[in-house]
Amino acid sequence: VNRIVLTGASGFVGRHVLQRLLARDLEVHAVARSPRPDGESVTWHEVDLLDATKVARLMQDIRPYALLHLAWYAEHGKFWSARENLDSAAATLELVRAFEQAGGRRVVLAGTCAEYDWSGDCCSAETPLRPSSLYGVAKGAVRELVSAYASSVGLSWAWGRIFFPYGPGEHPDRVIANAARRLGLGQEVPCSPGDQVRDFLYVHDVAEAFAKLVESEATGVFDVGSGRGVRLKDVLLRLQELAGRDGLITFSETLRRDEPARIVAEDRRLETEVGWRPAYDLDRGLTETLAWWADRYPDR
Amino acid sequence: VNRIVLTGASGFVGRHVLQRLLARDLEVHAVARSPRPDGESVTWHEVDLLDATKVARLMQDIRPYALLHLAWYAEHGKFWSARENLDSAAATLELVRAFEQAGGRRVVLAGTCAEYDWSGDCCSAETPLRPSSLYGVAKGAVRELVSAYASSVGLSWAWGRIFFPYGPGEHPDRVIANAARRLGLGQEVPCSPGDQVRDFLYVHDVAEAFAKLVESEATGVFDVGSGRGVRLKDVLLRLQELAGRDGLITFSETLRRDEPARIVAEDRRLETEVGWRPAYDLDRGLTETLAWWADRYPDR
Repeated sequence: VNRIVLTGASGFVGRHVLQRLLARDLEVHAVARSPRPDGESVTWHEVDLLDATKVARLMQDIRPYALLHLAWYAEHGKFWSARENLDSAAATLELVRAFEQAGGRRVVLAGTCAEYDWSGDCCSAETPLRPSSLYGVAKGAVRELVSAYASSVGLSWAWGRIFFPYGPGEHPDRVIANAARRLGLGQEVPCSPGDQVRDFLYVHDVAEAFAKLVESEATGVFDVGSGRGVRLKDVLLRLQELAGRDGLITFSETLRRDEPARIVAEDRRLETEVGWRPAYDLDRGLTETLAWWADRYPDR
Repeated sequence: VNRIVLTGASGFVGRHVLQRLLARDLEVHAVARSPRPDGESVTWHEVDLLDATKVARLMQDIRPYALLHLAWYAEHGKFWSARENLDSAAATLELVRAFEQAGGRRVVLAGTCAEYDWSGDCCSAETPLRPSSLYGVAKGAVRELVSAYASSVGLSWAWGRIFFPYGPGEHPDRVIANAARRLGLGQEVPCSPGDQVRDFLYVHDVAEAFAKLVESEATGVFDVGSGRGVRLKDVLLRLQELAGRDGLITFSETLRRDEPARIVAEDRRLETEVGWRPAYDLDRGLTETLAWWADRYPDR
């Protein structure tokens, strides 16, 4: 049975993953705090993942083959150091446990590039795993535990480290979403100098990586990045060009914050072991992002 | 208010810690799955630590200043690779979270020498933290997370790594308890060659270390060991001598298992920062252990 449980199904990445799972021959059980109307091959479950008893019952009821766990405390501007990271870590451990106890065989979880040490070259196999945020520590600790657990009980597992996703559904205060939204409205966009080089990845590509990971039997840790670094400033200038606007984005030293110079994935295992490659280049991703935001403000 | 919550209060180490806390001017709240009669300054709480909601309510009711958390899945012969390690890890995270949320200020937790890499020299500050058991991984992951959490929210924390405790109340199948019990009964004690060198510590000393840690404000990780390594074979022979028995213990190659050669604590921070030193030498600890087992079989 191709029965799969997806958590975080109403989140930024999760919504796109759900679409990709539905395009496959899968019976999808989506978990969320507030229920949504069931679709042809998706059943929504209203469960608070912090309630271990209910989670265990859900897994026994569904008895899924696979678990794709994306849910985590992700409140914009707060999640880096929020106490809720402990809740999310504990909930993840109990979720994996309940899943395996109910006969589950394949688990894929969302990690983060923040598990790496960002103070030096980042991120290759040589980069130390020395997170500086509570969020990164919590994700890293869960990774270690789930990895050891999977080895111990013979569970097939994969961990996809998310880098810098952007696209439809991103929180409107995050940098690319904010710029796309404001450009569409003809508003000014004050930015920091944007020197930092990042591995931006269109959210559809991120989602496809997770959909492929859950179908595969590849084991271990995979960086979900394009492998291409782009300066944030160049991304924003290109966005402005694609929007057909001029001079709305300004770069100001006074908005500069202390940021690591470069965070780009080097790991190619998603390509070599799972057969995934990004399908969207930056222009296409940014164009779709602008179009999505434009649709949200049809009257302007 | 010197109000403290002690978990694992009915466990091997916990029972001795409880006695030591009661000898101090503290209001002790002991947590256990099955309640016991309240004493003059101890209140027992019947709570399953896996029930996060009840744990949160308990902390709100008690509002303790300190938390001494010893509880963990510890079934003899099973705990090294048991699935329950995930439950214990998750429960610990939620317990610390609930404690801090209820205004708690000082938390002390039990770690293990199994957090270290046992394949080389063990254990000094140079020994890598590379646990090979699920138990060790789970403890290590919790340590990392609680450490980051404590730094992030400004919680005073300490982590005491337990080495090889022995003494009254130890599981009767563990090596020293088994030998003491059988020697007292005049029964033969078939043993492995016992070449391994270990840092054995009388459980009263282990308990005193934790009682001192919770009173102190010392922060970070502390190895709870004597710093002295003894061959297991020598411990057993001395036990036989103190029991006044001869020839009951036999050492057999056929019982040999693959064991790390030497695991001895080198960290002296408990002495320099907390003022703790072992009060029991091996002879005194073994003598008391023999006497305790003899009391359990008064008719023989």
